Amino acid sequence: MNQKMQWLRNKMSSLNLQGMIVSNPVNIRYLTNIQAEGILLVTRKENVFITDGRYIEDVHNTLTLFDEIVVYDVRGLTRDDYENFFMFCENVGFEENYVTYAKYKEYMHKYKINNLVETENMIEKQREVKDEEEIENIKKACQITDQCFAYILKYIKPGMTEKQIAREIDDYFYKNAEGASFETIVASGENSSKPHAIPSDRQIKEVDIITIDMGCKVNGYCSDMTRTFFVGEMPEYVKPVYNLVLKNQEQVLNDMRENSNTKQIAKMVDNDFRLHNYDLIHALGHGVGLDIHEAPTLSCYSENILKANMVVTDEPGIYVTGQFGVRIEDTVLINKGSCEALTKSPKGYIII
Amino acid sequence: MNQKMQWLRNKMSSLNLQGMIVSNPVNIRYLTNIQAEGILLVTRKENVFITDGRYIEDVHNTLTLFDEIVVYDVRGLTRDDYENFFMFCENVGFEENYVTYAKYKEYMHKYKINNLVETENMIEKQREVKDEEEIENIKKACQITDQCFAYILKYIKPGMTEKQIAREIDDYFYKNAEGASFETIVASGENSSKPHAIPSDRQIKEVDIITIDMGCKVNGYCSDMTRTFFVGEMPEYVKPVYNLVLKNQEQVLNDMRENSNTKQIAKMVDNDFRLHNYDLIHALGHGVGLDIHEAPTLSCYSENILKANMVVTDEPGIYVTGQFGVRIEDTVLINKGSCEALTKSPKGYIII
Repeated sequence: MNQKMQWLRNKMSSLNLQGMIVSNPVNIRYLTNIQAEGILLVTRKENVFITDGRYIEDVHNTLTLFDEIVVYDVRGLTRDDYENFFMFCENVGFEENYVTYAKYKEYMHKYKINNLVETENMIEKQREVKDEEEIENIKKACQITDQCFAYILKYIKPGMTEKQIAREIDDYFYKNAEGASFETIVASGENSSKPHAIPSDRQIKEVDIITIDMGCKVNGYCSDMTRTFFVGEMPEYVKPVYNLVLKNQEQVLNDMRENSNTKQIAKMVDNDFRLHNYDLIHALGHGVGLDIHEAPTLSCYSENILKANMVVTDEPGIYVTGQFGVRIEDTVLINKGSCEALTKSPKGYIII
Repeated sequence: MNQKMQWLRNKMSSLNLQGMIVSNPVNIRYLTNIQAEGILLVTRKENVFITDGRYIEDVHNTLTLFDEIVVYDVRGLTRDDYENFFMFCENVGFEENYVTYAKYKEYMHKYKINNLVETENMIEKQREVKDEEEIENIKKACQITDQCFAYILKYIKPGMTEKQIAREIDDYFYKNAEGASFETIVASGENSSKPHAIPSDRQIKEVDIITIDMGCKVNGYCSDMTRTFFVGEMPEYVKPVYNLVLKNQEQVLNDMRENSNTKQIAKMVDNDFRLHNYDLIHALGHGVGLDIHEAPTLSCYSENILKANMVVTDEPGIYVTGQFGVRIEDTVLINKGSCEALTKSPKGYIII
């Protein structure tokens, strides 16, 4: 059995779970490498993946004997089969943060489970700390993101639309990686005041401000980086805001390491912004892995302690409604006594 | 108040619901046009959308006074505010097929609701039957899909990879629509035997078979079309399979109209496939709208009666493991006495 499935079985036994239903496809991929619709059952006797005709061939190609996962076609299973999976299991774990209320009721009924137990994101929590291979994938994704940013700085010319630039970035990621890890944001001029702007037909002006938030995937693992930069010249009124965001982004990089308290770090940024009459209107950061947003959350509202080999973002931003915004973001690897920004694109004033 | 919100309030009152929590973002978009993270509350007194700082500006730009929706920033709400929303509501509806078990428990607690009532996909069911504007959007998306197919037939040359072709399709949709409505499938040679193949680096050969499954979005509304076609020549051994799939795909178009029973139609296809020692291994079709896959499902396992102005797919396929596959799919508008394929690309033998 692979290490991750072995970890899950050990964890289950420590929680007195005799069975477990894994429904979240990202968790299934994490544990088994399977990328298919279906459900993973960990029973007393075996590991079972139930899928349908569309995926059977692919799943068989993904798995090896070593994985010890039995694959069933949903169409071959009878009511008795379902009831037998968790027979004599006192407690069966499920993913209460992924499974809908309707599915929860269906599981109880279909598998005849008496006690379906909440597992409090235990797999997501395990995913927070990355192993070597995962870190390698994220590093590669970050490298490609840096290369893409260098390329796009040369590519952008006044008159191009936000959409066109976003498309060029996506193309770059499609050719050099597994595509973008989320919908690329290219927000220019007053659009940059929207943290989640959708690329529009707005054309880049001779003098302009642009925020680009982008990332790609390598073997399923994501990168995430934001830079705000300038076309023609950098307006004087933007400088204090840019400096404030950058100072805090770098201070956070100084402070993040194993055992740092993320709430304290986020509060520090929020306090400094407030001192200058701004606000940290979104989280300071989030975990990055197979999901572009995953645990832990770094914000004033949630207490998390960083661990070595976590990968998180550091992305303070200030948004002046209807005028402009500045956000600077790196993907960051947490180490014992320090941290390392895996995205390494320049952060000083960039004027193209 | 807009018609769709008015419909919801009428429906709620017929179900004796004094309040409703709408969590599914696609349902929120359907009802309000809002495209933002957040939650829609329909209370005794008002319609409320709760979102966060990232979206406030955008949401205000989307809504008009006519919508009668009050927007709150999640950060400005106190525990009392939450408890007041559904005060004196005996029954509050929720979306049990969207809301996780954990959220269900959170809602009960946060809003102090005594009776959170399952609403059995009532909004999804309402979405099945499209209004004029929705149909116009889907028609446009289907037209662009046809144009893209005509373009791509000329574009494909031996030596190109599946990825490259998929990328060209995505580019076309990005330029001429709101992008692809799902991950474009380009499956060639033996890859075509996988119904959900991911475009690979496999190069198109001088003589080859290609299945392309593609669609785009217009104002959020999707199209969905599949064609299987040939490079160089069409192998003799593929012809009987192609003919069998096409015959059934066209028979379904003949049979679908208001009041048709989708289970019977799917069984007819499955029976005909079985007569020839094949199998219908996936559903015959699905609804298309703001979601690429939505209600109703057309399959041997679910009983649905078609209604006028539903938009569904008709997509039989046969897959010979490790060898090849054939799927032919149209997006179809259901009318009173007939139906209309909205995707109109040719379905005879296509050899490029």
